[in-house]
Amino acid sequence: MRAAQVVAYGKPLEIREVPVPEPHGEEVLVRIGGAGLCHSDLHLMHGEIPLLPSLPFTLGHENAGWVEEMGENVQGFSKGDAVAVYGGWSEKPDRFAWAGQEQLTDIRKWVGIGFPGGYAEYLLVPSYRYLLPLGDLSPIEAAPLTDAALTPYRAVKKLLPSLYPGSTVVIIGVGGLGQFGVQFARVLTPSCQVIAIDVDSKKLEIARELGADHVIHGREEDPVAKVKSLTGGEGAQGVVDFVGSSATMTQAWNMAGRQAKVVIVGLAGGKLEFTTKVLNEAELTTSVWGSQVELSEVLELARRGVIRPRIRRVRFEEINEAFEDLAHGRIEGRAVLVPHDTLENAATGPTQ
Amino acid sequence: MRAAQVVAYGKPLEIREVPVPEPHGEEVLVRIGGAGLCHSDLHLMHGEIPLLPSLPFTLGHENAGWVEEMGENVQGFSKGDAVAVYGGWSEKPDRFAWAGQEQLTDIRKWVGIGFPGGYAEYLLVPSYRYLLPLGDLSPIEAAPLTDAALTPYRAVKKLLPSLYPGSTVVIIGVGGLGQFGVQFARVLTPSCQVIAIDVDSKKLEIARELGADHVIHGREEDPVAKVKSLTGGEGAQGVVDFVGSSATMTQAWNMAGRQAKVVIVGLAGGKLEFTTKVLNEAELTTSVWGSQVELSEVLELARRGVIRPRIRRVRFEEINEAFEDLAHGRIEGRAVLVPHDTLENAATGPTQ
Amino acid sequence: MRAAQVVAYGKPLEIREVPVPEPHGEEVLVRIGGAGLCHSDLHLMHGEIPLLPSLPFTLGHENAGWVEEMGENVQGFSKGDAVAVYGGWSEKPDRFAWAGQEQLTDIRKWVGIGFPGGYAEYLLVPSYRYLLPLGDLSPIEAAPLTDAALTPYRAVKKLLPSLYPGSTVVIIGVGGLGQFGVQFARVLTPSCQVIAIDVDSKKLEIARELGADHVIHGREEDPVAKVKSLTGGEGAQGVVDFVGSSATMTQAWNMAGRQAKVVIVGLAGGKLEFTTKVLNEAELTTSVWGSQVELSEVLELARRGVIRPRIRRVRFEEINEAFEDLAHGRIEGRAVLVPHDTLENAATGPTQ
Amino acid sequence: MRAAQVVAYGKPLEIREVPVPEPHGEEVLVRIGGAGLCHSDLHLMHGEIPLLPSLPFTLGHENAGWVEEMGENVQGFSKGDAVAVYGGWSEKPDRFAWAGQEQLTDIRKWVGIGFPGGYAEYLLVPSYRYLLPLGDLSPIEAAPLTDAALTPYRAVKKLLPSLYPGSTVVIIGVGGLGQFGVQFARVLTPSCQVIAIDVDSKKLEIARELGADHVIHGREEDPVAKVKSLTGGEGAQGVVDFVGSSATMTQAWNMAGRQAKVVIVGLAGGKLEFTTKVLNEAELTTSVWGSQVELSEVLELARRGVIRPRIRRVRFEEINEAFEDLAHGRIEGRAVLVPHDTLENAATGPTQ
Repeated sequence: MRAAQVVAYGKPLEIREVPVPEPHGEEVLVRIGGAGLCHSDLHLMHGEIPLLPSLPFTLGHENAGWVEEMGENVQGFSKGDAVAVYGGWSEKPDRFAWAGQEQLTDIRKWVGIGFPGGYAEYLLVPSYRYLLPLGDLSPIEAAPLTDAALTPYRAVKKLLPSLYPGSTVVIIGVGGLGQFGVQFARVLTPSCQVIAIDVDSKKLEIARELGADHVIHGREEDPVAKVKSLTGGEGAQGVVDFVGSSATMTQAWNMAGRQAKVVIVGLAGGKLEFTTKVLNEAELTTSVWGSQVELSEVLELARRGVIRPRIRRVRFEEINEAFEDLAHGRIEGRAVLVPHDTLENAATGPTQ
Repeated sequence: MRAAQVVAYGKPLEIREVPVPEPHGEEVLVRIGGAGLCHSDLHLMHGEIPLLPSLPFTLGHENAGWVEEMGENVQGFSKGDAVAVYGGWSEKPDRFAWAGQEQLTDIRKWVGIGFPGGYAEYLLVPSYRYLLPLGDLSPIEAAPLTDAALTPYRAVKKLLPSLYPGSTVVIIGVGGLGQFGVQFARVLTPSCQVIAIDVDSKKLEIARELGADHVIHGREEDPVAKVKSLTGGEGAQGVVDFVGSSATMTQAWNMAGRQAKVVIVGLAGGKLEFTTKVLNEAELTTSVWGSQVELSEVLELARRGVIRPRIRRVRFEEINEAFEDLAHGRIEGRAVLVPHDTLENAATGPTQ
Repeated sequence: MRAAQVVAYGKPLEIREVPVPEPHGEEVLVRIGGAGLCHSDLHLMHGEIPLLPSLPFTLGHENAGWVEEMGENVQGFSKGDAVAVYGGWSEKPDRFAWAGQEQLTDIRKWVGIGFPGGYAEYLLVPSYRYLLPLGDLSPIEAAPLTDAALTPYRAVKKLLPSLYPGSTVVIIGVGGLGQFGVQFARVLTPSCQVIAIDVDSKKLEIARELGADHVIHGREEDPVAKVKSLTGGEGAQGVVDFVGSSATMTQAWNMAGRQAKVVIVGLAGGKLEFTTKVLNEAELTTSVWGSQVELSEVLELARRGVIRPRIRRVRFEEINEAFEDLAHGRIEGRAVLVPHDTLENAATGPTQ
Repeated sequence: MRAAQVVAYGKPLEIREVPVPEPHGEEVLVRIGGAGLCHSDLHLMHGEIPLLPSLPFTLGHENAGWVEEMGENVQGFSKGDAVAVYGGWSEKPDRFAWAGQEQLTDIRKWVGIGFPGGYAEYLLVPSYRYLLPLGDLSPIEAAPLTDAALTPYRAVKKLLPSLYPGSTVVIIGVGGLGQFGVQFARVLTPSCQVIAIDVDSKKLEIARELGADHVIHGREEDPVAKVKSLTGGEGAQGVVDFVGSSATMTQAWNMAGRQAKVVIVGLAGGKLEFTTKVLNEAELTTSVWGSQVELSEVLELARRGVIRPRIRRVRFEEINEAFEDLAHGRIEGRAVLVPHDTLENAATGPTQ
């Protein structure tokens, strides 16, 4: 089968022919319907993320498709079932895995990072326990939900205990993840005021369309002052920073009100100076991907049409070009590799 | 290998020779060190619990031992590792399994109920994910922790959000589970008053030794009046009923104070009349076994010596006699089947 | 001033002239803008609710108006401020009062039940701490929010921890409180399916208008079977019963799925037989009025137009007729006593 | 009456004769039994804390004594009742006050900071709602509980949701507050490992006596490395820093494990550089004094003898000397001003 592989750091991916894996025990071979292109892949391609397997290596951690072949211990699935792949695989279960937060286990291997990923025609999933039935969702739509939507979903859910009707949620950075962030803030919070901040007017327009009550251009206005003014001086009760630069992290923290929650998601490498000058019991934390139950909830919200992914389909031969576009901010929404002939997918479903 | 099997409902178990299972994929063959005898086994032996497999069937849902043989996909374990077996296996994962509450999945098969159990020399476990390292604990001690301690642990944990320093916890029924209940109430609650109720003076004595501040003999005093008087009229903030008769359930509910939690665990088949006459926002619920994380916490508490199981060792040939004793309330603590030569276990550990 | 008083149980209210109270210390005299008519008043008028003051007594526990006069220790309010009155006053603060759940204190006096209520031109409020600024809301609209909306708000909020996207909430009884219940279920839950049940087709129509996804006529369909079928067999994750008859309570409990929450609010005096036959960890509880913070959230939701009260204005001389209509189910939404000339209210605000 | 007042910043307190206040409405005059000396008083005496009243001003925010005189609206108290004074008074109630977290209201006046405090023979309390019955506790013992114990109680309670049996709690700084912190960690957590860190060997010894499992001398060992090693590499699940220097704050954050909670209480003015380099979902926050319900729980723990304050009694004429000792770390436990003749207190209770 074909697979898009890292063969050397800093080089484009290479489309190579590799053997189709064979599933044993609880393993499932999934025929890839879609595999999302993510910023972290760029970091992996450049060798910037420490935990790296040996090369050549197949990337791709946002995967959905159809069950193609099953090991002898698989239960509850049949060939052709449309599935999303939960990708936060652990090498060794610990209390986080047992509690359904496998993405936080001590030894995280994860698909497309420690295990061969989904930029290929087929993906070997270590257990049917990682598969979620798609129902009416198409694998192409579902693929980016497994990370680009799941990650902001978890982050926004972390805010909920701090929110109440009339309180304010701020989403900083309205890119691929932030756009989902705005939608989740709209859908999950109990009549809160939703404010979106970005330095790109076009993205602020999208934020408005997705339901933001107010948008702030981070270069034209002082985001902290503006949020304070929009909240009668109190500040926001929930903030998610999808950028993670020193500037945005500092803004996020300074606009937080009493007992607010501030969640840093973006990995731009920023620093924030934390002091006790303002004693307001606000909480500062990070958020790591999402759990499998959270993914099932994201899929349900997509099935209900409450969140809408924006997708650009990419063929194998276009993958390096698409990553170029991603690196230069030219992708709106999410690019998704579609390794098999799409028409066939749509018309006939999975191979029989 | 030998296995104690139900061959016909209402008959004693039969010690039969059955093949040793072979593990594949993620499966693990565990050499049984101890397998606890439980009241529910009596119900299963008499065909009273609906979900039953075809006969002959090997009972035993409280299991611990050593890893004997591993399928080719097993990670993180080695032959000879001492392990407890989490037994709440699902047939098909759903949101409860994904969230680490597999005992609540829709289609519950569970070891010793839907899958062949541990009254045998060896047990086939469907995945290494169900195994928990024992550390210093002996499998004989650990076996009853997987249910007789795990079930009250979950029940007492359900009380915690309702408790505060100086509030009152009541444990009704100080048998095998209730004795752990008293210990957990002592250990987990923040300086609460712990009251134990039973109709057997000897068990009340044990409750006192295990840390109960007050004991009430249910036939010699009115438990509701006594609890009200011991709480200045307020009532208890947490109650676990390990009996589940109409009498105890009604007492449990009537002694509950404002926003109290009442958890019914015992399955004696009682009925409770719920009305809105007392408007105090008390909550009434049930509790089902425990989760794998909860089991890991119970094991830790045992390792720290904070809870102490009382164990009577039983050999294969004594198992029916032990069940007789269990049926007639003659077992203190827990009876545990030890299928292999104990001396050898203690002296040399697992077979090599 | 005029006040509508109970002079003898079972008799109509009498409009009597009583002295205007004088506020001291933290007390505030509120000029009543609106005072809601509630079913519990009927019980009080007939002497059916045990905790009763001596007669003659002024009813009225849903109050809003304007600050008229203040004791010398009042802070933060000025004459003419439009306010809602939180009415769950305690005789003696205890941990529930300290924690902002004063309606649950041991000795509940409450306005209009233990203290003279708001069916009068002026109401003496024991402390400015019980007043909430109305902002743009009119006191007439705000009055019923203090109970008819607050009570279902608290009940629906109790469901939230059990809910997730795609789960199901059932509201039983779509009268004055249930109509708010449907609205809160729509607004507060994260993309849940909302089902309303009643035996009055007209009310089911209203439920649909207010956002219910499905309605069930309790006499034409089997509510339990229908809810099971609308949830793929799982049952509802949250149920509020605003009726409280044996029939509805039993339905509410039987339609609950795993770890569901069932809240009984209606006081029709029903009984429910609780057993452990279905072991699903569902929780059964009651709900008592609401807290002051919850009232502030309800007011905010009304200010945002998210919930809409339906109001019929009543003058002093119409109050007994309005209670007759209420007793016979002829009030849609809520009747509100408007003791002062409404036109004046609207045109000039409070007296100066 | 005599009162110890700030007459000029940077000067010793002056014992001056001031009028005894008269209580009106809900106000209560409390005869001071004990008033604790706190580090924040030093900051106030030096004008370092921004929110300052006009001089001369009576300090003292840790107060307990007896009801001496009551306004006409006071309920539920009698002359001579022994009471602790909850001191987090607000100028204007908002959602934090309504929810029983008055210390977090927007306009915090607080006793001894915005209102005249308890370094006097009598204290005017704005409402009986702020008084808590002492039961058997002596006002001298109770006084420091209202802040020196309440503040660490709240901080340690913030850790609880992150803890589980066998997890680790670290208390940094074993001074007046930290000593209570160690005791609360011991009492409130479910069989956790408690580690105390300080740079004073004598205080580490006290920590051991109070129940710490391990102590670390912050200058002789690397606290972060040591905590990692005592936790098998995982790090602590809960950390409270009672110092708040840049060094301790950085240690606190770096020793935190996955989903840990880190609470900074000490106000030494430190800075912590927060980055996303370690993605472990640990949470960083502050903690402000405590709520009235929390104070009631602290008093209960003291009544049960579970926590033991160490007290040095101070007379009016010794107060400046005692503050000197406090400033130079020469007070073990807490100094408490006892304005009236102690012997009389002990022998005859309050004045009649």
